[in-house]
Amino acid sequence: MNQGQVFLVGAGPGDPELLTLRALRMIQSADVVVHDRLVSRDIMALVPAGVRRINVGKKPNHHPVPQDEINALLVQLVQEGATVARLKGGDPMIFGRGSEEAAVLHAAGIKVSYAPGITAAQGVSASTGVPLTHRGLATGVRYVTGHCQANRPLDLDWDGLADADTTLVVYMGHANMQQIAAGLIERGLPAEHPVLVVANGTRPNETRLVTQLGALQIKRANIPVPGPVLFIVGRVVTLIDSEDSTAADTLLRAPELQRVLHG
Amino acid sequence: MNQGQVFLVGAGPGDPELLTLRALRMIQSADVVVHDRLVSRDIMALVPAGVRRINVGKKPNHHPVPQDEINALLVQLVQEGATVARLKGGDPMIFGRGSEEAAVLHAAGIKVSYAPGITAAQGVSASTGVPLTHRGLATGVRYVTGHCQANRPLDLDWDGLADADTTLVVYMGHANMQQIAAGLIERGLPAEHPVLVVANGTRPNETRLVTQLGALQIKRANIPVPGPVLFIVGRVVTLIDSEDSTAADTLLRAPELQRVLHG
Ligand SMILES: C[S@@+](CC[C@H](N)C(=O)[O-])C[C@H]1O[C@@H](n2cnc3c(N)ncnc32)[C@H](O)[C@@H]1O
Ligand SMILES: C[S@@+](CC[C@H](N)C(=O)[O-])C[C@H]1O[C@@H](n2cnc3c(N)ncnc32)[C@H](O)[C@@H]1O
Repeated sequence: MNQGQVFLVGAGPGDPELLTLRALRMIQSADVVVHDRLVSRDIMALVPAGVRRINVGKKPNHHPVPQDEINALLVQLVQEGATVARLKGGDPMIFGRGSEEAAVLHAAGIKVSYAPGITAAQGVSASTGVPLTHRGLATGVRYVTGHCQANRPLDLDWDGLADADTTLVVYMGHANMQQIAAGLIERGLPAEHPVLVVANGTRPNETRLVTQLGALQIKRANIPVPGPVLFIVGRVVTLIDSEDSTAADTLLRAPELQRVLHG
Repeated sequence: MNQGQVFLVGAGPGDPELLTLRALRMIQSADVVVHDRLVSRDIMALVPAGVRRINVGKKPNHHPVPQDEINALLVQLVQEGATVARLKGGDPMIFGRGSEEAAVLHAAGIKVSYAPGITAAQGVSASTGVPLTHRGLATGVRYVTGHCQANRPLDLDWDGLADADTTLVVYMGHANMQQIAAGLIERGLPAEHPVLVVANGTRPNETRLVTQLGALQIKRANIPVPGPVLFIVGRVVTLIDSEDSTAADTLLRAPELQRVLHG
């Protein structure tokens, strides 16, 4: 009897060249690829023709598939004997709920193997030349989420966050970045503290904006951003690769992001 | 005239399958590969025969090559017309001094392109099943270095570090982990707070030890560890993939690491 299993695979931030060799092997040897909305079209193009694809990022009614339905689907596919590649944006173990799915699979006695992925912070770092640590500018780096559950306040360790010697990367921060910027300034970071905002990092439509905490603090209209957005807060932003003409171009093309963030 | 350039390439933590597709393309299209000691033998085996290799991890006298000599070497190779792949362990932009080298190259008018790499924390996360974030256990993750310059005290933001809701990953922590564990307990983390110690993560000789902050706090003899060591401090360690028989085996084989850490 065919014994199914799950590969929990990181797809990276969007550029298909940022897949690992293991991730490519896994998606090319699976019977089914179960993927999120964040996984780019260019990456899905690497899945061999004839392999079944299931998009759990969006239901026909435009709502995301609830986590327990995804878990049940993975278990069912494996019980039918399939080798399933569960493909997620970035690294499944960083704000990816990969370990929640792994726990359900383990409980069902299913074997799970992992392929890590380049996380959004690293993809943006490579595409802009902004390092995550740098002697004299940042002794470490921290990834937090700016997302909060409906009607609940942001659950952030504010005092620990306002550290000028640490690069702070905010995932899922778009809706609450004004509040986060204000909180950081209140706890002592200067209003001039540099911030890099990148939408669609590593993708053909990557858009960047270099700004300051004080500017982000300003209230804005809630205009939706067309794609995932990452915030890198820290002195390392001053090292942005402005020699690179593409970077300069993109900075000029940032009015869209300007409008979104500064209202 | 042949215009040289530099590819700043992340090699990941050791397993060659964790290279990105871009990293592989870059090391296979370079004229010279300039690599560190941390880059594994298995990865160097992917460099095509006939490509020049320069190991700057160790001089004939067993001292590492000073950073300014490495910088000068890169500039010289490019000025001679070479395409140089500068290959570093993990991600060059995380505790890798990649951005220091890029700054020198930019100042010399040299084009730099980047391939990010799976950083040690992600490699270890994938090989052990320990996530870096997880709902209810860790709202974020932080990477710090436990290394300090000769005769100087550890430069850590102690108060911000002792946060039970953040996974703390300590790079280069081997020499000072006792002091770090003691400092974290002093600032309020429980002595039972879980710690995963991994030497040679993702390599055939990967060795793991699950322990607690209180146990690490104990003074030990300064036995050198055979290879790079990473510490993951946080509740996520309780999720370690013990279903995996390899993991269980390795835990049993950890007395070597026990001896090193607990004296
Ligand atoms: C649910 S989290 C998933 C993170 C993912 N597991 C990773 O490691 O990158 C989604 C958030 O990641 C960030 N993100 C992912 N891909 C991105 C990209 N290509 N450009 C900018 N931000 C990105 C955004 O902040 C987005 O809101
Ligand atoms: C100079 S730092 C370089 C980090 C690298 N740039 C990265 O992103 O992983 C070297 C430290 O990385 C960690 N490290 C690198 N490779 C590792 C591995 N295979 N297993 C465990 N730790 C590793 C160790 O803490 C080591 O002291």
